[in-house]
Amino acid sequence: MRLTPAPELLQRCRNLQRHLASHQLDAALLAQNADLFYFTGSTQQGLLYIPREGEPLYLVRRDHGRARMESGLKEVLPLESPRALPTLIQAHGHKLPGRIGLELDVLPVAFHQRLVRLFPGCETVDVTPLAREVRAVKSDYEIGIMKDAALLADKVIQRVSEVMKAGMTDLDLAAELEYVARKNGHQGFVRMRAFNGEIFYGHVFSGTDSAAPGGADAPLSGMGLSPSFGQGASYKTIRAGEPVLVDFVACFDGYLVDLTRLFCIGGMEERLHQGFDAMIELHNAFVDRARPGSSWQELYDFCVETAGRMGYADQFMGAGAAKVGFVGHGVGIELDEYPFIARGFADKRLEENMTFAFEPKLVFPGLGAVGIENTFWVGGDGLKSLTYSDAQLKIL
Amino acid sequence: MRLTPAPELLQRCRNLQRHLASHQLDAALLAQNADLFYFTGSTQQGLLYIPREGEPLYLVRRDHGRARMESGLKEVLPLESPRALPTLIQAHGHKLPGRIGLELDVLPVAFHQRLVRLFPGCETVDVTPLAREVRAVKSDYEIGIMKDAALLADKVIQRVSEVMKAGMTDLDLAAELEYVARKNGHQGFVRMRAFNGEIFYGHVFSGTDSAAPGGADAPLSGMGLSPSFGQGASYKTIRAGEPVLVDFVACFDGYLVDLTRLFCIGGMEERLHQGFDAMIELHNAFVDRARPGSSWQELYDFCVETAGRMGYADQFMGAGAAKVGFVGHGVGIELDEYPFIARGFADKRLEENMTFAFEPKLVFPGLGAVGIENTFWVGGDGLKSLTYSDAQLKIL
Repeated sequence: MRLTPAPELLQRCRNLQRHLASHQLDAALLAQNADLFYFTGSTQQGLLYIPREGEPLYLVRRDHGRARMESGLKEVLPLESPRALPTLIQAHGHKLPGRIGLELDVLPVAFHQRLVRLFPGCETVDVTPLAREVRAVKSDYEIGIMKDAALLADKVIQRVSEVMKAGMTDLDLAAELEYVARKNGHQGFVRMRAFNGEIFYGHVFSGTDSAAPGGADAPLSGMGLSPSFGQGASYKTIRAGEPVLVDFVACFDGYLVDLTRLFCIGGMEERLHQGFDAMIELHNAFVDRARPGSSWQELYDFCVETAGRMGYADQFMGAGAAKVGFVGHGVGIELDEYPFIARGFADKRLEENMTFAFEPKLVFPGLGAVGIENTFWVGGDGLKSLTYSDAQLKIL
Repeated sequence: MRLTPAPELLQRCRNLQRHLASHQLDAALLAQNADLFYFTGSTQQGLLYIPREGEPLYLVRRDHGRARMESGLKEVLPLESPRALPTLIQAHGHKLPGRIGLELDVLPVAFHQRLVRLFPGCETVDVTPLAREVRAVKSDYEIGIMKDAALLADKVIQRVSEVMKAGMTDLDLAAELEYVARKNGHQGFVRMRAFNGEIFYGHVFSGTDSAAPGGADAPLSGMGLSPSFGQGASYKTIRAGEPVLVDFVACFDGYLVDLTRLFCIGGMEERLHQGFDAMIELHNAFVDRARPGSSWQELYDFCVETAGRMGYADQFMGAGAAKVGFVGHGVGIELDEYPFIARGFADKRLEENMTFAFEPKLVFPGLGAVGIENTFWVGGDGLKSLTYSDAQLKIL
């Protein structure tokens, strides 16, 4: 079992501590699983207290023995109740914080109320933007795991050509691909940070269903099996002549990559072919352009302008009101990390070793969707693709 | 595609409105997917405003057209931004609320702050306990869907005997079962309400791994494939003589059932056999005892006392510090609904048409776990089992 090396964890905590100092925060108190896994190497039930200086305290309700086994942090302590928190902090030589960072984007109100009551008079600040900054820049260790996830993703993509046949349903195809992923070590659960963020292995859909608008925060949504979870594969039958999109999230040892490949049986309408070729062209132009220092929003604007110049203003990243305001999203432990290649991020820039998925897509309502997606890391001289599966349209 | 009938939705909203009235609340504003699905029949991105009297307003950011198609509610309105909320409420003849119910157990702090700013001076109250009360009592329509989920669960259990072999890993077995579930319409994503609540199809584990303590809020946890998601199936090899537990969550058209069955190859240690027989006995005694009016906590106490009398005080519902404080949990749209057969619910009583999973289990550290789980609905004269798969230990 791969355990996050202790020096790796310490470095991550040190990186956050630098941000705490520059934002005049005395400490961060983290509770959410993705953050716990990143900073402790474990996801046992507990809290992580990171003082601005000194050793982080991983306080575990259950299971403490297991957290000690999994986490490379020095201080992994049992926690009977959150009420013991102030005493434990002081017992480890720290003053109680006057200004503390909490994950205000994910902490439920009721839980937050219980936490703040432990620190009377303490000011609370959202620490998530700082944790996001730290987590966005991956270590070589993390990129190594993401390469394993890309290997897993390729096995899934390879499998499509072996099993896809006219007459099977989108769900049939999804089940075959999910099976291959799971057999090869996909962890199953995929984390999203956003409230109501729900995802299951990604999306497999064909023809009109691939072009259905939906509530998921994605350019394509699909119908799903019922309105309860109205995204991804449905019972629709795959027919010759339709685009079939496989948008798959591979998750290995906690790390994600995201990719999309396009398939069809016997060919597709010329309009879809042209659209796909345009998205490949846009994809390649983006890869040529993006490098450390690129503004997230400028990259987004470049994509929207390019798609518009190509004549796809109406179809790019969703049709009509179903359009989303991004073409890329950071991936790592969560599917919605920094960076966002999106509107509203004029001041944010790509940094070396950031990792993100880039997914230019076109939606033709009533006909289908086309597009491509790869997961990249930012190298010193430009983007390097983590996902490596053959990007061409595969005609079966 | 099964759409929730309009009268069903209206009845659900009326039931909540009665609670709003008796708690002096002017309205509820719901945002979380499980609540949206229950009260609107849809999970598009949006908010549901339920005034104490009159028609609920389902306000949808995206996709509005799809929400109109999926939801049987009369008022399904487009919502450009939450800022439009007060205007829309007033435009539909309602006064702005002075006291409003929000889902404080799940709403993130930052999102909550944005919502309360829309209603200056308005008092906010946690509406989740009220919504939980309403959702706990299922309609015949809901119980019908849960019967479909039980059918799906049985296909999974049937499959175990066909595929389980010594030498395969827990993951191999899990992958086979998940495949069968998915092919037969499992929705994939399983909802939990608790913060950090994460689950993937349930748990498949053997021998020592079935007895490993963990952070998941369950009597058994498993090791998982990595500390990132440290629950469920691992790479451990299944050997003859070990208990193999299949704790599976079937989800069909948004509704769950949860069951556990025990398997082994060639037999198991006598101690495990005896423990399993004891859990079956406890299970049957519980079923005889529970009925409308039973106190949740008294039922829990009865189980703990019975297990203690049988000599299993140390093993029941987890060993040592890994013990959990419940033997049953409500299921429906989420895996952690009311009722909880648990500590701390002295005043709560079973009502007709509540549905819950009951899972008496024993953990023998270093050896393995045994137990049984079924999902029940509360009939007028006692419990009726929704899950019906053969409950006996299956020796392969």
